[in-house]
Amino acid sequence: MEDHDFRLNIVVVGLGLIGSSFAMALKKLKPKNIWGIDKDKDTVDIALSKNIIDKGFTSERYILKTADITVIALYPENTVEFVKENIKNFKKNSIIIDVSGIKSKVVEDINSFLPEDLEFIGTHPMAGRENRGVKYARDDIFNGTNYVITPSCRNKEKNLDLIESIAKKIGFKNVVYTSPKEHDDMIAFTSQMPHVLAAALIDSITDESDVNLFIGGSFKDVTRVALINPELWAELFTVNSDALIGKIEKFEESLDRIRTAVKLKDRQTLCAIFKDVTYKRKQIF
Amino acid sequence: MEDHDFRLNIVVVGLGLIGSSFAMALKKLKPKNIWGIDKDKDTVDIALSKNIIDKGFTSERYILKTADITVIALYPENTVEFVKENIKNFKKNSIIIDVSGIKSKVVEDINSFLPEDLEFIGTHPMAGRENRGVKYARDDIFNGTNYVITPSCRNKEKNLDLIESIAKKIGFKNVVYTSPKEHDDMIAFTSQMPHVLAAALIDSITDESDVNLFIGGSFKDVTRVALINPELWAELFTVNSDALIGKIEKFEESLDRIRTAVKLKDRQTLCAIFKDVTYKRKQIF
Repeated sequence: MEDHDFRLNIVVVGLGLIGSSFAMALKKLKPKNIWGIDKDKDTVDIALSKNIIDKGFTSERYILKTADITVIALYPENTVEFVKENIKNFKKNSIIIDVSGIKSKVVEDINSFLPEDLEFIGTHPMAGRENRGVKYARDDIFNGTNYVITPSCRNKEKNLDLIESIAKKIGFKNVVYTSPKEHDDMIAFTSQMPHVLAAALIDSITDESDVNLFIGGSFKDVTRVALINPELWAELFTVNSDALIGKIEKFEESLDRIRTAVKLKDRQTLCAIFKDVTYKRKQIF
Repeated sequence: MEDHDFRLNIVVVGLGLIGSSFAMALKKLKPKNIWGIDKDKDTVDIALSKNIIDKGFTSERYILKTADITVIALYPENTVEFVKENIKNFKKNSIIIDVSGIKSKVVEDINSFLPEDLEFIGTHPMAGRENRGVKYARDDIFNGTNYVITPSCRNKEKNLDLIESIAKKIGFKNVVYTSPKEHDDMIAFTSQMPHVLAAALIDSITDESDVNLFIGGSFKDVTRVALINPELWAELFTVNSDALIGKIEKFEESLDRIRTAVKLKDRQTLCAIFKDVTYKRKQIF
Protein backbone atom coordinates (compact mmCIF):
# COMPACT_ATOMS: atom_id res chain seq x y z
CA MET A 1 0.00 0.00 0.00
CA GLU A 2 1.21 3.49 -0.89
CA ASP A 3 2.27 6.07 1.63
CA HIS A 4 -0.51 8.61 1.40
CA ASP A 5 -0.53 12.29 2.11
CA PHE A 6 -3.55 12.90 4.31
CA ARG A 7 -3.30 16.70 4.27
CA LEU A 8 -6.63 16.87 2.48
CA ASN A 9 -9.79 18.91 2.63
CA ILE A 10 -12.62 16.62 3.60
CA VAL A 11 -16.32 17.48 3.73
CA VAL A 12 -18.81 15.26 5.56
CA VAL A 13 -22.39 15.67 4.35
CA GLY A 14 -25.01 14.65 6.92
CA LEU A 15 -23.98 14.92 10.55
CA GLY A 16 -26.06 12.11 11.99
CA LEU A 17 -24.49 9.47 14.22
CA ILE A 18 -22.41 7.89 11.46
CA GLY A 19 -21.46 11.10 9.64
CA SER A 20 -20.39 12.96 12.76
CA SER A 21 -18.59 9.92 14.20
CA PHE A 22 -16.81 9.55 10.85
CA ALA A 23 -15.80 13.22 10.96
CA MET A 24 -14.45 12.75 14.49
CA ALA A 25 -12.50 9.65 13.52
CA LEU A 26 -11.10 11.41 10.44
CA LYS A 27 -9.29 13.85 12.74
CA LYS A 28 -6.85 11.03 13.46
CA LEU A 29 -5.51 11.57 9.92
CA LYS A 30 -4.63 15.20 10.72
CA PRO A 31 -6.25 16.37 7.46
CA LYS A 32 -5.93 19.99 6.32
CA ASN A 33 -9.62 20.69 7.07
CA ILE A 34 -12.74 18.81 8.05
CA TRP A 35 -15.94 20.59 7.14
CA GLY A 36 -19.51 19.55 7.70
CA ILE A 37 -22.81 20.11 5.92
CA ASP A 38 -26.16 19.38 7.51
CA LYS A 39 -29.53 20.90 6.69
CA ASP A 40 -30.27 21.22 10.41
CA LYS A 41 -28.69 24.32 11.94
CA ASP A 42 -28.75 22.93 15.52
CA THR A 43 -26.88 19.84 14.37
CA VAL A 44 -24.20 21.98 12.75
CA ASP A 45 -23.90 24.06 15.91
CA ILE A 46 -23.49 20.98 18.11
CA ALA A 47 -20.87 19.57 15.72
CA LEU A 48 -18.99 22.87 15.89
CA SER A 49 -19.25 23.15 19.68
CA LYS A 50 -18.00 19.59 20.10
CA ASN A 51 -15.12 20.42 17.76
CA ILE A 52 -16.16 17.63 15.40
CA ILE A 53 -15.79 19.89 12.34
CA ASP A 54 -13.68 22.96 11.63
CA LYS A 55 -16.45 24.76 9.76
CA GLY A 56 -20.11 23.93 9.26
CA PHE A 57 -22.73 24.79 6.66
CA THR A 58 -26.45 24.24 6.22
CA SER A 59 -26.89 25.07 2.57
CA GLU A 60 -23.78 26.73 1.18
CA ARG A 61 -22.37 24.19 -1.20
CA TYR A 62 -19.41 26.20 -2.55
CA ILE A 63 -17.32 24.43 0.07
CA LEU A 64 -17.54 21.26 -2.06
CA LYS A 65 -15.41 23.04 -4.69
CA THR A 66 -12.35 22.80 -2.43
CA ALA A 67 -12.97 19.30 -1.03
CA ASP A 68 -10.59 16.51 -2.06
CA ILE A 69 -12.91 13.95 -0.53
CA THR A 70 -16.65 14.29 0.07
CA VAL A 71 -18.12 11.76 2.50
CA ILE A 72 -21.89 11.52 2.10
CA ALA A 73 -23.59 10.14 5.19
CA LEU A 74 -27.23 10.37 4.15
CA TYR A 75 -29.94 7.79 3.51
CA PRO A 76 -29.37 5.93 0.19
CA GLU A 77 -31.82 7.85 -1.99
CA ASN A 78 -30.81 11.20 -0.51
CA THR A 79 -27.21 10.28 -1.27
CA VAL A 80 -27.99 9.88 -4.97
CA GLU A 81 -30.04 13.07 -4.93
CA PHE A 82 -27.30 15.08 -3.21
CA VAL A 83 -24.71 14.05 -5.80
CA LYS A 84 -27.11 14.84 -8.64
CA GLU A 85 -28.02 18.28 -7.27
CA ASN A 86 -24.39 19.19 -6.67
CA ILE A 87 -22.95 17.64 -9.77
CA LYS A 88 -21.46 21.00 -10.78
CA ASN A 89 -20.25 21.88 -7.29
CA PHE A 90 -17.68 19.13 -6.71
CA LYS A 91 -13.96 19.74 -7.16
CA LYS A 92 -12.55 18.26 -10.39
CA ASN A 93 -10.87 14.85 -9.88
CA SER A 94 -12.09 14.66 -6.30
CA ILE A 95 -13.44 11.52 -4.67
CA ILE A 96 -16.98 11.11 -3.38
CA ILE A 97 -17.74 8.23 -1.03
CA ASP A 98 -20.95 7.25 0.72
CA VAL A 99 -21.56 5.17 3.85
CA SER A 100 -25.08 3.86 3.29
CA GLY A 101 -26.23 0.34 4.08
CA ILE A 102 -27.11 -0.74 0.53
CA LYS A 103 -24.83 -0.38 -2.45
CA SER A 104 -26.09 -1.63 -5.87
CA LYS A 105 -28.69 1.05 -6.41
CA VAL A 106 -26.50 3.87 -5.05
CA VAL A 107 -23.41 2.93 -7.07
CA GLU A 108 -25.35 2.32 -10.30
CA ASP A 109 -27.52 5.42 -10.04
CA ILE A 110 -24.62 7.75 -9.28
CA ASN A 111 -22.34 6.30 -11.95
CA SER A 112 -25.11 6.73 -14.51
CA PHE A 113 -24.80 10.51 -14.39
CA LEU A 114 -21.35 11.12 -12.90
CA PRO A 115 -18.94 12.98 -15.24
CA GLU A 116 -15.57 11.45 -16.11
CA ASP A 117 -13.62 13.85 -13.90
CA LEU A 118 -15.33 12.72 -10.68
CA GLU A 119 -15.06 9.38 -8.93
CA PHE A 120 -17.63 7.74 -6.68
CA ILE A 121 -16.66 4.91 -4.31
CA GLY A 122 -19.39 3.05 -2.44
CA THR A 123 -18.46 2.07 1.12
CA HIS A 124 -20.26 0.68 4.15
CA PRO A 125 -18.84 1.06 7.66
CA MET A 126 -20.47 -1.81 9.55
CA ALA A 127 -21.15 0.02 12.76
CA GLY A 128 -24.49 1.15 14.06
CA ARG A 129 -26.06 2.13 17.32
CA GLU A 130 -29.58 2.40 18.67
CA ASN A 131 -28.95 6.08 19.37
CA ARG A 132 -29.25 8.61 16.61
CA GLY A 133 -27.73 12.01 16.00
CA VAL A 134 -24.63 14.09 16.51
CA LYS A 135 -25.13 14.05 20.30
CA TYR A 136 -24.01 10.42 20.38
CA ALA A 137 -21.02 10.85 18.05
CA ARG A 138 -17.85 9.08 19.16
CA ASP A 139 -14.55 8.69 17.40
CA ASP A 140 -14.23 5.04 18.41
CA ILE A 141 -17.44 3.45 17.12
CA PHE A 142 -15.59 2.04 14.11
CA ASN A 143 -12.83 0.44 16.15
CA GLY A 144 -12.65 -3.25 15.47
CA THR A 145 -15.50 -3.26 12.93
CA ASN A 146 -15.62 -4.10 9.23
CA TYR A 147 -15.42 -1.56 6.41
CA VAL A 148 -16.81 -2.79 3.12
CA ILE A 149 -15.73 -1.15 -0.14
CA THR A 150 -17.73 -1.98 -3.28
CA PRO A 151 -15.64 -0.84 -6.25
CA SER A 152 -17.04 -0.26 -9.70
CA CYS A 153 -15.10 -0.39 -12.98
CA ARG A 154 -14.90 3.39 -12.79
CA ASN A 155 -12.67 3.36 -9.68
CA LYS A 156 -8.93 3.93 -9.92
CA GLU A 157 -6.60 1.69 -7.95
CA LYS A 158 -4.85 4.59 -6.25
CA ASN A 159 -8.12 6.09 -5.05
CA LEU A 160 -9.38 2.78 -3.63
CA ASP A 161 -6.03 2.47 -1.96
CA LEU A 162 -6.35 5.94 -0.42
CA ILE A 163 -9.81 5.15 0.99
CA GLU A 164 -8.54 1.84 2.37
CA SER A 165 -5.63 3.62 4.07
CA ILE A 166 -7.99 6.12 5.64
CA ALA A 167 -10.28 3.33 6.88
CA LYS A 168 -7.36 1.54 8.52
CA LYS A 169 -6.13 4.77 10.11
CA ILE A 170 -9.48 5.59 11.66
CA GLY A 171 -9.84 2.23 13.38
CA PHE A 172 -11.60 -0.28 11.15
CA LYS A 173 -10.36 -3.81 11.69
CA ASN A 174 -11.01 -5.32 8.27
CA VAL A 175 -11.34 -3.63 4.91
CA VAL A 176 -13.37 -5.94 2.69
CA TYR A 177 -13.72 -5.58 -1.09
CA THR A 178 -16.76 -6.97 -2.77
CA SER A 179 -19.13 -6.14 -5.61
CA PRO A 180 -22.17 -3.97 -4.81
CA LYS A 181 -24.48 -6.90 -5.61
CA GLU A 182 -22.60 -9.34 -3.37
CA HIS A 183 -22.55 -6.72 -0.61
CA ASP A 184 -26.32 -6.29 -0.77
CA ASP A 185 -26.85 -10.03 -0.74
CA MET A 186 -24.64 -10.54 2.34
CA ILE A 187 -26.03 -7.54 4.16
CA ALA A 188 -29.58 -8.76 3.60
CA PHE A 189 -28.60 -11.71 5.75
CA THR A 190 -26.16 -10.32 8.34
CA SER A 191 -27.76 -6.94 8.97
CA GLN A 192 -31.29 -6.81 7.58
CA MET A 193 -32.45 -10.24 8.79
CA PRO A 194 -31.61 -9.55 12.47
CA HIS A 195 -33.74 -6.41 12.20
CA VAL A 196 -36.56 -8.31 10.47
CA LEU A 197 -36.62 -10.99 13.18
CA ALA A 198 -36.44 -8.56 16.09
CA ALA A 199 -39.22 -6.46 14.60
CA ALA A 200 -41.44 -9.47 13.83
CA LEU A 201 -40.92 -10.90 17.34
CA ILE A 202 -41.94 -7.66 19.03
CA ASP A 203 -44.79 -7.21 16.55
CA SER A 204 -46.15 -10.64 17.49
CA ILE A 205 -46.76 -9.65 21.13
CA THR A 206 -50.44 -9.36 21.86
CA ASP A 207 -50.12 -8.00 25.39
CA GLU A 208 -46.81 -6.56 26.52
CA SER A 209 -47.91 -5.66 30.07
CA ASP A 210 -46.23 -8.50 32.00
CA VAL A 211 -43.58 -9.50 29.50
CA ASN A 212 -40.76 -7.80 31.39
CA LEU A 213 -41.27 -10.07 34.40
CA PHE A 214 -40.34 -13.12 32.36
CA ILE A 215 -37.31 -11.79 30.59
CA GLY A 216 -33.80 -13.18 30.71
CA GLY A 217 -30.77 -12.18 28.69
CA SER A 218 -31.79 -13.85 25.43
CA PHE A 219 -34.87 -11.74 24.81
CA LYS A 220 -32.98 -8.53 25.49
CA ASP A 221 -30.23 -9.50 23.04
CA VAL A 222 -32.50 -10.64 20.26
CA THR A 223 -34.81 -7.60 20.41
CA ARG A 224 -32.25 -4.80 20.90
CA VAL A 225 -32.34 -4.03 17.19
CA ALA A 226 -36.12 -3.67 17.28
CA LEU A 227 -35.23 -0.12 18.36
CA ILE A 228 -35.11 0.74 14.71
CA ASN A 229 -34.96 3.99 12.76
CA PRO A 230 -38.27 3.52 10.90
CA GLU A 231 -37.70 5.70 7.81
CA LEU A 232 -34.14 4.53 7.20
CA TRP A 233 -34.86 0.84 7.53
CA ALA A 234 -38.07 1.01 5.52
CA GLU A 235 -35.92 2.46 2.72
CA LEU A 236 -33.08 -0.07 3.16
CA PHE A 237 -35.51 -3.01 3.12
CA THR A 238 -37.45 -1.91 0.05
CA VAL A 239 -34.41 -0.88 -1.98
CA ASN A 240 -32.85 -4.28 -1.25
CA SER A 241 -36.17 -6.08 -1.63
CA ASP A 242 -35.09 -8.99 -3.87
CA ALA A 243 -32.08 -10.04 -1.80
CA LEU A 244 -33.99 -9.69 1.46
CA ILE A 245 -36.98 -11.72 0.25
CA GLY A 246 -34.56 -14.52 -0.64
CA LYS A 247 -33.14 -14.53 2.91
CA ILE A 248 -36.57 -14.40 4.53
CA GLU A 249 -37.67 -17.40 2.46
CA LYS A 250 -34.58 -19.40 3.42
CA PHE A 251 -35.20 -18.48 7.05
CA GLU A 252 -38.82 -19.60 6.79
CA GLU A 253 -37.67 -23.01 5.55
CA SER A 254 -35.44 -23.39 8.60
CA LEU A 255 -38.15 -22.14 10.95
CA ASP A 256 -40.52 -24.61 9.37
CA ARG A 257 -38.17 -27.52 10.08
CA ILE A 258 -37.97 -26.47 13.73
CA ARG A 259 -41.73 -25.89 14.01
CA THR A 260 -42.49 -29.32 12.56
CA ALA A 261 -40.04 -31.00 14.95
CA VAL A 262 -41.55 -29.13 17.93
CA LYS A 263 -45.06 -30.11 16.83
CA LEU A 264 -44.09 -33.78 16.46
CA LYS A 265 -42.11 -33.60 19.72
CA ASP A 266 -39.23 -34.96 17.66
CA ARG A 267 -36.40 -34.45 20.11
CA GLN A 268 -33.80 -36.16 17.97
CA THR A 269 -34.24 -33.81 15.00
CA LEU A 270 -34.19 -30.74 17.26
CA CYS A 271 -31.05 -31.97 18.95
CA ALA A 272 -29.36 -32.51 15.58
CA ILE A 273 -30.36 -29.03 14.37
CA PHE A 274 -29.07 -27.39 17.58
CA LYS A 275 -25.77 -29.26 17.41
CA ASP A 276 -25.28 -28.18 13.82
CA VAL A 277 -26.27 -24.60 14.59
CA THR A 278 -23.91 -24.32 17.56
CA TYR A 279 -21.08 -25.62 15.38
CA LYS A 280 -21.90 -23.18 12.54
CA ARG A 281 -22.18 -20.22 14.93
CA LYS A 282 -18.74 -21.03 16.35
CA GLN A 283 -17.31 -21.21 12.81
CA ILE A 284 -18.50 -17.67 12.09
CA PHE A 285 -16.89 -15.90 15.05
CA MET B 1 -42.95 -11.07 55.06
CA GLU B 2 -41.88 -13.19 58.02
CA ASP B 3 -38.46 -13.06 59.58
CA HIS B 4 -37.00 -16.40 58.61
CA ASP B 5 -34.37 -18.51 60.27
CA PHE B 6 -31.96 -19.48 57.50
CA ARG B 7 -29.91 -21.87 59.63
CA LEU B 8 -31.01 -24.74 57.44
CA ASN B 9 -29.49 -27.77 55.80
CA ILE B 10 -29.71 -27.33 52.04
CA VAL B 11 -28.81 -29.89 49.36
CA VAL B 12 -28.30 -28.88 45.75
CA VAL B 13 -28.79 -31.74 43.27
CA GLY B 14 -27.01 -31.23 39.95
CA LEU B 15 -23.93 -29.02 40.04
CA GLY B 16 -24.13 -27.56 36.53
CA LEU B 17 -23.87 -23.84 35.97
CA ILE B 18 -27.22 -23.02 37.59
CA GLY B 19 -27.00 -25.54 40.43
CA SER B 20 -23.49 -24.62 41.47
CA SER B 21 -24.13 -20.88 41.08
CA PHE B 22 -27.25 -21.31 43.20
CA ALA B 23 -25.21 -23.13 45.84
CA MET B 24 -22.66 -20.30 45.85
CA ALA B 25 -25.35 -17.65 46.16
CA LEU B 26 -27.05 -19.59 48.96
CA LYS B 27 -23.96 -19.07 51.11
CA LYS B 28 -25.11 -15.47 51.54
CA LEU B 29 -27.86 -16.87 53.81
CA LYS B 30 -25.28 -18.40 56.15
CA PRO B 31 -27.18 -21.69 56.23
CA LYS B 32 -26.17 -24.50 58.57
CA ASN B 33 -24.84 -26.63 55.70
CA ILE B 34 -24.80 -26.63 51.93
CA TRP B 35 -24.28 -30.02 50.41
CA GLY B 36 -24.10 -31.04 46.77
CA ILE B 37 -25.00 -34.14 44.77
CA ASP B 38 -23.80 -34.71 41.23
CA LYS B 39 -23.37 -37.98 39.39
CA ASP B 40 -20.04 -36.77 38.02
CA LYS B 41 -17.18 -37.20 40.49
CA ASP B 42 -14.98 -34.51 38.85
CA THR B 43 -17.81 -31.99 39.14
CA VAL B 44 -18.19 -32.74 42.84
CA ASP B 45 -14.42 -32.38 43.32
CA ILE B 46 -14.34 -29.00 41.58
CA ALA B 47 -17.32 -27.80 43.64
CA LEU B 48 -15.52 -28.87 46.83
CA SER B 49 -12.22 -27.31 45.78
CA LYS B 50 -13.96 -24.02 44.93
CA ASN B 51 -15.66 -24.16 48.33
CA ILE B 52 -19.08 -24.05 46.65
CA ILE B 53 -20.39 -26.88 48.85
CA ASP B 54 -19.45 -28.12 52.33
CA LYS B 55 -19.78 -31.78 51.40
CA GLY B 56 -20.34 -33.51 48.08
CA PHE B 57 -21.79 -36.84 46.99
CA THR B 58 -22.16 -38.76 43.74
CA SER B 59 -24.71 -41.36 44.71
CA GLU B 60 -25.20 -41.42 48.46
CA ARG B 61 -28.70 -40.14 48.96
CA TYR B 62 -28.96 -40.53 52.76
CA ILE B 63 -27.92 -36.89 52.95
CA LEU B 64 -31.44 -35.97 51.72
CA LYS B 65 -32.81 -37.28 55.04
CA THR B 66 -31.33 -34.29 56.89
CA ALA B 67 -32.04 -31.61 54.26
CA ASP B 68 -34.63 -28.95 55.09
CA ILE B 69 -34.57 -27.78 51.50
CA THR B 70 -33.58 -29.79 48.42
CA VAL B 71 -32.83 -27.70 45.32
CA ILE B 72 -32.99 -29.83 42.19
CA ALA B 73 -31.05 -28.30 39.31
CA LEU B 74 -31.49 -31.00 36.67
CA TYR B 75 -33.23 -31.09 33.29
CA PRO B 76 -37.04 -31.20 33.67
CA GLU B 77 -37.58 -34.94 33.16
CA ASN B 78 -34.58 -35.85 35.29
CA THR B 79 -36.03 -33.63 38.00
CA VAL B 80 -39.25 -35.64 38.09
CA GLU B 81 -37.29 -38.89 37.98
CA PHE B 82 -34.99 -37.85 40.83
CA VAL B 83 -37.92 -37.01 43.11
CA LYS B 84 -39.63 -40.30 42.23
CA GLU B 85 -36.53 -42.40 42.85
CA ASN B 86 -35.83 -40.69 46.16
CA ILE B 87 -39.38 -40.40 47.36
CA LYS B 88 -38.49 -42.32 50.55
CA ASN B 89 -35.20 -40.50 51.11
CA PHE B 90 -36.45 -36.94 51.71
CA LYS B 91 -36.80 -35.53 55.21
CA LYS B 92 -40.41 -35.36 56.43
CA ASN B 93 -42.02 -31.92 55.98
CA SER B 94 -39.05 -30.68 54.00
CA ILE B 95 -39.31 -28.52 50.88
CA ILE B 96 -38.17 -29.56 47.42
CA ILE B 97 -37.74 -26.90 44.76
CA ASP B 98 -36.58 -27.15 41.16
CA VAL B 99 -35.09 -24.54 38.83
CA SER B 100 -35.99 -25.90 35.40
CA GLY B 101 -37.19 -23.80 32.49
CA ILE B 102 -40.64 -25.35 32.11
CA LYS B 103 -43.10 -25.82 34.92
CA SER B 104 -46.53 -27.38 34.13
CA LYS B 105 -45.28 -30.88 33.47
CA VAL B 106 -42.77 -30.87 36.33
CA VAL B 107 -45.22 -29.53 38.95
CA GLU B 108 -48.08 -31.80 37.82
CA ASP B 109 -45.97 -34.95 37.53
CA ILE B 110 -44.29 -34.52 40.91
CA ASN B 111 -47.48 -33.60 42.74
CA SER B 112 -49.16 -36.71 41.30
CA PHE B 113 -46.99 -38.99 43.42
CA LEU B 114 -45.69 -36.73 46.21
CA PRO B 115 -46.80 -37.81 49.72
CA GLU B 116 -48.67 -35.35 51.96
CA ASP B 117 -45.67 -34.78 54.23
CA LEU B 118 -43.47 -33.37 51.43
CA GLU B 119 -43.89 -30.12 49.56
CA PHE B 120 -42.72 -29.33 46.03
CA ILE B 121 -42.39 -25.73 44.82
CA GLY B 122 -41.66 -25.07 41.15
CA THR B 123 -39.33 -22.13 40.53
CA HIS B 124 -37.43 -20.68 37.59
CA PRO B 125 -34.43 -18.40 38.06
CA MET B 126 -34.31 -16.45 34.80
CA ALA B 127 -30.58 -16.44 34.35
CA GLY B 128 -28.62 -18.38 31.81
CA ARG B 129 -25.25 -18.28 30.19
CA GLU B 130 -23.68 -19.72 27.06
CA ASN B 131 -21.12 -21.48 29.25
CA ARG B 132 -21.96 -24.71 30.97
CA GLY B 133 -20.72 -26.41 34.08
CA VAL B 134 -19.40 -25.83 37.58
CA LYS B 135 -16.25 -24.19 36.19
CA TYR B 136 -18.28 -21.11 35.28
CA ALA B 137 -20.22 -20.92 38.57
CA ARG B 138 -20.57 -17.44 40.02
CA ASP B 139 -22.51 -16.23 43.02
CA ASP B 140 -23.72 -13.12 41.19
CA ILE B 141 -25.38 -14.48 38.04
CA PHE B 142 -28.82 -14.01 39.63
CA ASN B 143 -28.24 -10.41 40.61
CA GLY B 144 -30.87 -8.18 39.07
CA THR B 145 -32.74 -11.04 37.35
CA ASN B 146 -36.26 -12.40 37.75
CA TYR B 147 -37.20 -15.39 39.90
CA VAL B 148 -40.49 -16.99 38.96
CA ILE B 149 -42.37 -19.11 41.52
CA THR B 150 -45.27 -21.23 40.22
CA PRO B 151 -47.28 -22.30 43.27
CA SER B 152 -49.71 -25.20 43.27
CA CYS B 153 -52.65 -25.66 45.62
CA ARG B 154 -50.44 -27.99 47.64
CA ASN B 155 -48.05 -25.18 48.69
CA LYS B 156 -48.25 -23.60 52.14
CA GLU B 157 -48.06 -19.83 52.43
CA LYS B 158 -45.17 -19.95 54.90
CA ASN B 159 -43.08 -22.15 52.65
CA LEU B 160 -43.63 -19.94 49.60
CA ASP B 161 -42.69 -17.03 51.80
CA LEU B 162 -39.47 -18.76 52.88
CA ILE B 163 -38.45 -19.44 49.28
CA GLU B 164 -39.24 -15.85 48.31
CA SER B 165 -37.09 -14.56 51.21
CA ILE B 166 -34.21 -16.77 50.09
CA ALA B 167 -34.54 -15.55 46.48
CA LYS B 168 -34.41 -11.92 47.58
CA LYS B 169 -31.42 -12.59 49.83
CA ILE B 170 -29.40 -14.22 47.07
CA GLY B 171 -29.80 -11.31 44.68
CA PHE B 172 -32.88 -11.75 42.52
CA LYS B 173 -34.49 -8.43 41.63
CA ASN B 174 -38.10 -9.51 41.20
CA VAL B 175 -39.93 -12.49 42.62
CA VAL B 176 -42.87 -13.19 40.34
CA TYR B 177 -45.77 -15.52 41.19
CA THR B 178 -47.69 -17.13 38.39
CA SER B 179 -49.38 -20.41 37.56
CA PRO B 180 -47.27 -23.14 35.94
CA LYS B 181 -49.37 -22.86 32.77
CA GLU B 182 -49.02 -19.08 32.52
CA HIS B 183 -45.28 -19.42 33.17
CA ASP B 184 -44.88 -21.88 30.32
CA ASP B 185 -46.87 -19.66 28.00
CA MET B 186 -44.79 -16.55 28.79
CA ILE B 187 -41.51 -18.41 28.68
CA ALA B 188 -42.35 -19.85 25.27
CA PHE B 189 -42.28 -16.27 24.07
CA THR B 190 -39.58 -14.55 26.12
CA SER B 191 -37.04 -17.37 26.32
CA GLN B 192 -37.84 -20.11 23.81
CA MET B 193 -38.65 -17.87 20.82
CA PRO B 194 -35.28 -16.03 20.93
CA HIS B 195 -33.61 -19.43 20.81
CA VAL B 196 -35.87 -20.61 17.96
CA LEU B 197 -35.11 -17.51 15.87
CA ALA B 198 -31.36 -17.55 16.50
CA ALA B 199 -31.21 -21.25 15.63
CA ALA B 200 -33.33 -20.87 12.48
CA LEU B 201 -31.28 -17.88 11.29
CA ILE B 202 -28.00 -19.75 11.64
CA ASP B 203 -29.57 -22.87 10.15
CA SER B 204 -30.59 -20.88 7.07
CA ILE B 205 -26.99 -20.05 6.13
CA THR B 206 -25.93 -21.93 3.03
CA ASP B 207 -22.27 -20.88 3.07
CA GLU B 208 -20.80 -19.45 6.25
CA SER B 209 -17.29 -18.88 4.88
CA ASP B 210 -17.40 -15.10 4.35
CA VAL B 211 -20.24 -14.21 6.68
CA ASN B 212 -17.96 -12.83 9.39
CA LEU B 213 -16.68 -10.10 7.06
CA PHE B 214 -20.15 -8.58 6.83
CA ILE B 215 -21.11 -8.69 10.47
CA GLY B 216 -22.06 -5.75 12.63
CA GLY B 217 -23.43 -5.72 16.16
CA SER B 218 -26.97 -6.79 15.31
CA PHE B 219 -26.05 -10.23 13.97
CA LYS B 220 -23.87 -10.97 16.98
CA ASP B 221 -26.64 -10.00 19.40
CA VAL B 222 -29.38 -11.92 17.65
CA THR B 223 -27.39 -15.13 17.24
CA ARG B 224 -25.63 -15.31 20.63
CA VAL B 225 -28.27 -17.73 21.89
CA ALA B 226 -27.70 -20.02 18.91
CA LEU B 227 -24.90 -21.35 21.15
CA ILE B 228 -27.44 -23.69 22.62
CA ASN B 229 -27.26 -26.73 24.88
CA PRO B 230 -28.81 -29.19 22.37
CA GLU B 231 -30.19 -31.86 24.71
CA LEU B 232 -31.63 -29.41 27.24
CA TRP B 233 -33.35 -27.20 24.70
CA ALA B 234 -34.66 -30.11 22.64
CA GLU B 235 -36.34 -31.27 25.87
CA LEU B 236 -37.61 -27.81 26.84
CA PHE B 237 -39.09 -27.21 23.38
CA THR B 238 -40.85 -30.55 23.09
CA VAL B 239 -42.23 -30.58 26.64
CA ASN B 240 -43.62 -27.07 26.05
CA SER B 241 -44.67 -27.92 22.50
CA ASP B 242 -48.22 -26.50 22.51
CA ALA B 243 -47.33 -23.10 23.94
CA LEU B 244 -44.28 -22.77 21.70
CA ILE B 245 -46.17 -23.68 18.53
CA GLY B 246 -48.65 -20.92 19.35
CA LYS B 247 -45.85 -18.36 19.62
CA ILE B 248 -44.16 -19.54 16.43
CA GLU B 249 -47.45 -19.19 14.55
CA LYS B 250 -48.02 -15.66 15.88
CA PHE B 251 -44.45 -14.79 14.86
CA GLU B 252 -45.02 -16.21 11.39
CA GLU B 253 -48.02 -13.92 10.94
CA SER B 254 -45.88 -10.90 11.82
CA LEU B 255 -43.03 -12.07 9.61
CA ASP B 256 -45.52 -12.54 6.79
CA ARG B 257 -46.74 -8.93 7.12
CA ILE B 258 -43.15 -7.70 6.88
CA ARG B 259 -42.30 -10.04 3.98
CA THR B 260 -45.33 -8.90 2.00
CA ALA B 261 -44.49 -5.22 2.57
CA VAL B 262 -40.87 -5.82 1.51
CA LYS B 263 -42.04 -7.67 -1.61
CA LEU B 264 -44.47 -4.88 -2.56
CA LYS B 265 -41.83 -2.26 -1.65
CA ASP B 266 -44.51 -0.79 0.57
CA ARG B 267 -42.44 1.67 2.55
CA GLN B 268 -45.37 3.18 4.41
CA THR B 269 -46.48 -0.12 5.96
CA LEU B 270 -42.92 -0.99 6.96
CA CYS B 271 -42.44 2.41 8.51
CA ALA B 272 -45.68 2.02 10.50
CA ILE B 273 -44.65 -1.44 11.73
CA PHE B 274 -41.20 -0.21 12.79
CA LYS B 275 -42.64 2.77 14.65
CA ASP B 276 -45.05 0.53 16.50
CA VAL B 277 -42.34 -2.02 17.27
CA THR B 278 -39.91 0.61 18.60
CA TYR B 279 -42.67 1.94 20.85
CA LYS B 280 -43.59 -1.54 22.13
CA ARG B 281 -39.95 -2.47 22.76
CA LYS B 282 -39.51 0.68 24.84
CA GLN B 283 -42.64 -0.17 26.82
CA ILE B 284 -41.17 -3.53 27.81
CA PHE B 285 -37.87 -2.33 29.26
